Amino acid sequence: MTPRTLLQPNPKLDLVLERDVDVPTELVWAAWTQPEHVKHWFAPAPMKITECEMDVRPGGIFRFVMRSPEGEEYPSVGCFLEVVPNERLVWTDALLPGYRPSENPFFTAIVKLEPRTGGTRYTAIALHRDEKIRKQHEGGFHQGWGQVLDQLVEYARNM
Amino acid sequence: MTPRTLLQPNPKLDLVLERDVDVPTELVWAAWTQPEHVKHWFAPAPMKITECEMDVRPGGIFRFVMRSPEGEEYPSVGCFLEVVPNERLVWTDALLPGYRPSENPFFTAIVKLEPRTGGTRYTAIALHRDEKIRKQHEGGFHQGWGQVLDQLVEYARNM
Repeated sequence: MTPRTLLQPNPKLDLVLERDVDVPTELVWAAWTQPEHVKHWFAPAPMKITECEMDVRPGGIFRFVMRSPEGEEYPSVGCFLEVVPNERLVWTDALLPGYRPSENPFFTAIVKLEPRTGGTRYTAIALHRDEKIRKQHEGGFHQGWGQVLDQLVEYARNM
Repeated sequence: MTPRTLLQPNPKLDLVLERDVDVPTELVWAAWTQPEHVKHWFAPAPMKITECEMDVRPGGIFRFVMRSPEGEEYPSVGCFLEVVPNERLVWTDALLPGYRPSENPFFTAIVKLEPRTGGTRYTAIALHRDEKIRKQHEGGFHQGWGQVLDQLVEYARNM
């Protein structure tokens, strides 16, 4: 397991969303790691996830397609790097499944979960290679990842 | 641990060097994972390793500098992805330490070790994102990685 010190975000290059949610850690983990759940909350509405494939282990595929109401499709493929159930999930689009370098690396995502009374401290971190990409991602990250966290919480209530 | 099926090379995109060497698996592993050893064999002579830094765990740094006899320096930095002692070491320059995407991704390297009577089956695999990069790497890989394996064997005899 990677030491925590290696996963500290750099404010110049990275984006961080931290929030306490009233969903048990195990449920957040399940919602995040099973394609049949991910489909229901991972795209910011009115976008939808139309395909989702996950092999949740280091080197395993994480592939999904988002579709806009106009029918435009946004496919993404990457691989998982670290999987610590109920604690930490790390994946990147800089590497394809089996660790092959990708054509269009954009970011690495770290999702950290910590149990809290009545729920979970949820931290999402996006790591970028430079300030330019961080800036491109800034609006979409804070709005998008915030919105899908609301959707996850809503969805998890009925899981 | 990544399933073996995920780490199968693709002949169009990847390069593979496989050879049986008369060095015990544990010694090959030690030579590959300790900077004070790596310095002695990892650069194809007359190149030299002048700096080497390794934090051999997933997300940990793998940084080195090669120097030519003319004094030109070739620095490289990446991170380890998988570390299975005496069996498998995976690292990439597509990610910096802590999994941050890098500026100039070139390849992912897999070193596999299997004990054999009298020594070790040594397999080095280089994964590339496209055929063009594979072709760029082809000459250097077969000559360079072959030569440094000879150097490793020679060095390991006196470890």
